[in-house]
Amino acid sequence: MKLATIRTATATAAVRIDDDAAVELGAEDLGVFLARPDWRSAAETATGARHELTGLNFAPLVPKPEKVFCVGLNYRTHILEMGRELPEYPALFAKFARALVGAHDPVELPAGSEQVDWEAELGVVIGTEVRHASPEQAAAAIAGYTVVNDVTARDFQYRSVEWLQGKTFERSTPVGPWLVTDAEPGDISCEVDGDVVQKADTSDLVFGPADLVAYISQIITLVPGDIIATGTPGGVGHARKPPRYLGEGSAVVTRVEGVGELKNIVVKAD
Amino acid sequence: MKLATIRTATATAAVRIDDDAAVELGAEDLGVFLARPDWRSAAETATGARHELTGLNFAPLVPKPEKVFCVGLNYRTHILEMGRELPEYPALFAKFARALVGAHDPVELPAGSEQVDWEAELGVVIGTEVRHASPEQAAAAIAGYTVVNDVTARDFQYRSVEWLQGKTFERSTPVGPWLVTDAEPGDISCEVDGDVVQKADTSDLVFGPADLVAYISQIITLVPGDIIATGTPGGVGHARKPPRYLGEGSAVVTRVEGVGELKNIVVKAD
Repeated sequence: MKLATIRTATATAAVRIDDDAAVELGAEDLGVFLARPDWRSAAETATGARHELTGLNFAPLVPKPEKVFCVGLNYRTHILEMGRELPEYPALFAKFARALVGAHDPVELPAGSEQVDWEAELGVVIGTEVRHASPEQAAAAIAGYTVVNDVTARDFQYRSVEWLQGKTFERSTPVGPWLVTDAEPGDISCEVDGDVVQKADTSDLVFGPADLVAYISQIITLVPGDIIATGTPGGVGHARKPPRYLGEGSAVVTRVEGVGELKNIVVKAD
Repeated sequence: MKLATIRTATATAAVRIDDDAAVELGAEDLGVFLARPDWRSAAETATGARHELTGLNFAPLVPKPEKVFCVGLNYRTHILEMGRELPEYPALFAKFARALVGAHDPVELPAGSEQVDWEAELGVVIGTEVRHASPEQAAAAIAGYTVVNDVTARDFQYRSVEWLQGKTFERSTPVGPWLVTDAEPGDISCEVDGDVVQKADTSDLVFGPADLVAYISQIITLVPGDIIATGTPGGVGHARKPPRYLGEGSAVVTRVEGVGELKNIVVKAD
């Protein structure tokens, strides 16, 4: 089952994406909808207003998540090829909701940055409140998967030891187009202007989705709609020689096989 | 003028704290109240239900801020005495709203941490939406000051290069008791079990309140109720020889002269 938040003429709406239409679920967005304890059965049986699939306008998957956690280096092959040891604990940082945009929205180039880079990531969306979760509880708390591009202003990221300021620029991070509740995520890739710049297998994650949910839930309660961006594989622009960055007009396609695809054009921030 | 969020018998309420009573402002909390464009005049003239000052139960000053930004090393004297250079840019990290507690609430000792430390900080609360603020706009966007103790699980903080996981433990960070709209913050101090462990002058900040608002507003829109914890001076427990940490029953008093005082007892998380 695929669930999303779309923009309608007057507002936004949580929808189920069927083969022939998007069907409204009776909530203003997917975050609100996932807060219903019966969201899964309610989604399966919903028969609300229908929208043609062509021309759906995707909002950020969850427009106002309470929390967005992101993970640093988390692809085994990439860590080892860089000569580093596998980490004992995930490197976690945050992103605020205003950084998020929809699956086909413009990605804004932060004013003041000259090193805007891509980071294709598998996204995990929480469907059940959890705290101090066992691995089984953690797996059960996952509503499903989505696609994230953790677009990063490298110059701002490295202005201090803490990455937040390079990671949370307004309207920089596409998330969507939908949540897939029964996905088996496969290859992850990023294309920039038609060049495949990242390609990896999501099964290569050091800390997998349930590991991350269990770990984070030791620290803080995860709630429905919370998003975890699970980290990016090798191939980012900043590590290339010479480095390669996104600029005005760059076309970025971020794909997770079995989950979905983001297509974004980079624009100057107003 | 002092504004706060108190817990009432049934809910929470934004209040003005007068010399003889707390007067309700007609909003469920201070974050909701500050979103009114006319909050300042509305606060000055409010004549809502009154509560005796004795026994006020303070909620986190803003219970659900959209954003909490925190700043790393930011006291000039402390940076220089450690032999470091003054930073060109602030080190920014995040905290999620669930980490916050009220001015007299128990502070929860994170399960799994054995290195829980204090960090007295001057807090800044945003009163007007700002983006790309000039220094003047930044100063005008500040609703006022409060007191924060950025309680930190050092072992979790240093598990990776990113500090977030040591900084955002549930119910670990007292904020309050009130916002002072016309404060001139003076000395900042922290006492643990009666010992003065931190003492500094808030005018010693490298990046002052308006600097931080202007800087952060380049990255993301700041909105009413957002909180900036401006960094802590020397004297944290982790840097002592031998180190000193908080434990069950520790009594922590965090004070900013001209602003207010937090008094918290450390308890085991349930």
